Amino acid sequence: MAQKPSIPKGTRDFNPEQVAKRNYIFNTIKAAFETFGFQPIETPSFENSETLMGKYGDEGDRLIFKILNSGDYLSKSDAQAYEEKDSNKLTASISEKALRYDLTVPFARYVVQHQSEIEFPFKRYQIQPVWRADRPQKGRFREFYQCDADVVGSKSLWQEVEFLQLYDTVFSALKLEGVVIKINNRKILSGIAEVIGASDKLIDFTVALDKLDKIGEDKVKEEMLSKGISMEGISKLQPLFNLSGSFESQIESLKSILSSSEEGKKGIEELAFINEAISELGLATASLQLDVTLARGLNYYTGAIFEVAAPKTVQMGSIGGGGRYDDLTGIFGLNNVSGVGISFGLDRIYLVLEELNLFPEAVNKNVEVLFINFGDKEALFCLKAIKKLRSEGVNTELYPEADKMKKQMNHANKRAIPFVVLVGEEEMTSNLYTLKNMISGEQEKVSLERLIKQLK
Amino acid sequence: MAQKPSIPKGTRDFNPEQVAKRNYIFNTIKAAFETFGFQPIETPSFENSETLMGKYGDEGDRLIFKILNSGDYLSKSDAQAYEEKDSNKLTASISEKALRYDLTVPFARYVVQHQSEIEFPFKRYQIQPVWRADRPQKGRFREFYQCDADVVGSKSLWQEVEFLQLYDTVFSALKLEGVVIKINNRKILSGIAEVIGASDKLIDFTVALDKLDKIGEDKVKEEMLSKGISMEGISKLQPLFNLSGSFESQIESLKSILSSSEEGKKGIEELAFINEAISELGLATASLQLDVTLARGLNYYTGAIFEVAAPKTVQMGSIGGGGRYDDLTGIFGLNNVSGVGISFGLDRIYLVLEELNLFPEAVNKNVEVLFINFGDKEALFCLKAIKKLRSEGVNTELYPEADKMKKQMNHANKRAIPFVVLVGEEEMTSNLYTLKNMISGEQEKVSLERLIKQLK
Repeated sequence: MAQKPSIPKGTRDFNPEQVAKRNYIFNTIKAAFETFGFQPIETPSFENSETLMGKYGDEGDRLIFKILNSGDYLSKSDAQAYEEKDSNKLTASISEKALRYDLTVPFARYVVQHQSEIEFPFKRYQIQPVWRADRPQKGRFREFYQCDADVVGSKSLWQEVEFLQLYDTVFSALKLEGVVIKINNRKILSGIAEVIGASDKLIDFTVALDKLDKIGEDKVKEEMLSKGISMEGISKLQPLFNLSGSFESQIESLKSILSSSEEGKKGIEELAFINEAISELGLATASLQLDVTLARGLNYYTGAIFEVAAPKTVQMGSIGGGGRYDDLTGIFGLNNVSGVGISFGLDRIYLVLEELNLFPEAVNKNVEVLFINFGDKEALFCLKAIKKLRSEGVNTELYPEADKMKKQMNHANKRAIPFVVLVGEEEMTSNLYTLKNMISGEQEKVSLERLIKQLK
Repeated sequence: MAQKPSIPKGTRDFNPEQVAKRNYIFNTIKAAFETFGFQPIETPSFENSETLMGKYGDEGDRLIFKILNSGDYLSKSDAQAYEEKDSNKLTASISEKALRYDLTVPFARYVVQHQSEIEFPFKRYQIQPVWRADRPQKGRFREFYQCDADVVGSKSLWQEVEFLQLYDTVFSALKLEGVVIKINNRKILSGIAEVIGASDKLIDFTVALDKLDKIGEDKVKEEMLSKGISMEGISKLQPLFNLSGSFESQIESLKSILSSSEEGKKGIEELAFINEAISELGLATASLQLDVTLARGLNYYTGAIFEVAAPKTVQMGSIGGGGRYDDLTGIFGLNNVSGVGISFGLDRIYLVLEELNLFPEAVNKNVEVLFINFGDKEALFCLKAIKKLRSEGVNTELYPEADKMKKQMNHANKRAIPFVVLVGEEEMTSNLYTLKNMISGEQEKVSLERLIKQLK
């Protein structure tokens, strides 16, 4: 019956140190979410398939993990699909549930389902795993956590201002200085498309523009041309490619580029409002940058678009992103509820903190002291002291067996436990504890009181 | 495209208050786990099917949620099973992964897979959801959390002593006084079966004995008889039914009942050791009770068996359980690794704390102060103060729109926010903040410094 055990590709085991480091990030984010007034919700790991299917495009539908119905699932299967052996067509009849693909759609479902209990504007955060049947590769997993904060029910631009401050607060708390928060606005992109006469090609246009950093100006123009955007339109883009300087000076350039587009002007106004507020309030360690090429999730966002880049010293994609979407809950029948939100990319943040050596040394709550076991009588004596230490919050262990001293000391060393306590006949008689510092090698006899004081 | 949204039966959404209460329990348990030297691990939500299948009996296999393979899964399906439309037989060929059914089997898999990195004895805890396709009913869900702590690699009975103290520590910290920890030992049950000549009917015998509380002595005897246990054997059980009094006096009775069984005597010895240690060390609020009818998960346990009963004032099944299993990792090819562990029943503990009103009042980290919004200029002024308050750890919000005062105050009331701050023209000029206590209705003008002091 022996098997060589393994886990599915794209999934991970986390050892105690990794869990501690991940929790350090989670807890830092949570603490910031809460001071900003966000409250946690949790939704089930799987949803009814109809809640998820069709919400992420065809590619998304394909990547959603489906759960097989229980029992004799074939008895209720789609006869025709079964006949044709058509996997795609059969799925709906043998699978009613699917694993959460992101936190946004379940959140929209939650808001609609519980709308009568919710006081709007509703600020919620959610930190839970999601699953995607993506091809696993470096930094891309089939099970990973998302950390989202969203506000629904408020169109106020102060929300955008707050989210920028929230990013700054979190990354400052993580000591990850120098992140760049890029901002754009869907209305700017629509305005540009309008101005160059490519409103009907907004998606093609933005997909191409989004690649500016990677493939350069000429290739971007080629791609636009190939998508049917006119040479004349493209030439109007020239000022865009030359945008530089401060946020304010870019705003000024955009004003002239977009002077003929009402939507574009609205976008500029929104960006300017946000930028002025942030200038007044200040950011502790992050900086805000206007990036008109930023388009992420365009089908989805209707106003501000955010993306956070790690400090330039590390090679890493975006470590966060978000934006405003004007009709999130419409898919579930609740219209006119505007939302705006951000998310944090846990796995990448982890890699960045690791690379820059930013995890606090004490992040792993290791055992602080191991009591050496010299036999049952001594062990019982020790357990009384251990009980006191634990009640004072000191992580304490008794070595379970009266093994050879060397083996026990080795165990302490291998686990990097900084102190051991030795209690033998003599110590029991004198009611003193021999405390040994495993790093310096020093040892001294101390009373229980002093032992607690030293280890606390 | 509008749908009436719902969630799959047996699953739950948790609102902010529920999340806060659940986290209160989790955090209390975690803190205790860590002072006892347990360290957290996490395993993937789904495992390879062969890791889980066959580990929980036929019933378990049926209740495991299977994940449908991605892509054209039918192209690799078992042709014969497909022909026969045999759901059971087809599953293995269209589903390679399955959702975690408990935390124990994944833990065993983890230990074997990572044995070279692990320093034994290994004390781990794990708090993660599990999924079972059980028929949902009151208090039984298809997705629920398990909280387990286990030690592997040590046969020492001190582990059992430690686990009893751990239970006491957790329930005392939760202020849930008066829980009863029942203890038994598989060797006692084997010994009894041996003595009454029913060693080959150990399972039938213990299943019947386990029902003593529910169906009474006569029915238990009837059931045993019906399972082929002799009348003569059953009559030898009489002293068992009459067991009462202190732990020690029950031990004495067992000694005479089991005098002819070596295994039984070993079980008595173990129980006595544990009881003596606990008597010496004391329990803060729990009590320890010997219960020879306790058999839970017998196929599994080889030594001590634990079960925790809620205080008698509430009607509730067991709120925790565990025991020693001598060959957990054998199923994955690593033999002779003894383990012992306990688990906490989160959902039931939640219900008990709710019923006894034991959740701390401040468990829900609500927003402490809402700044009323009188317009953009005022809002910006407020956000500077809000930034300071948040950096001091005060959960603070700005009302996002400059809505009518009444609407904003209503929002604060509905969300039970205890304070609001009002900043208008006058306050901005004088650099003072009007702080209003929403409960008493009192209000005063204070400086920023004082505001922070009052709200902190």
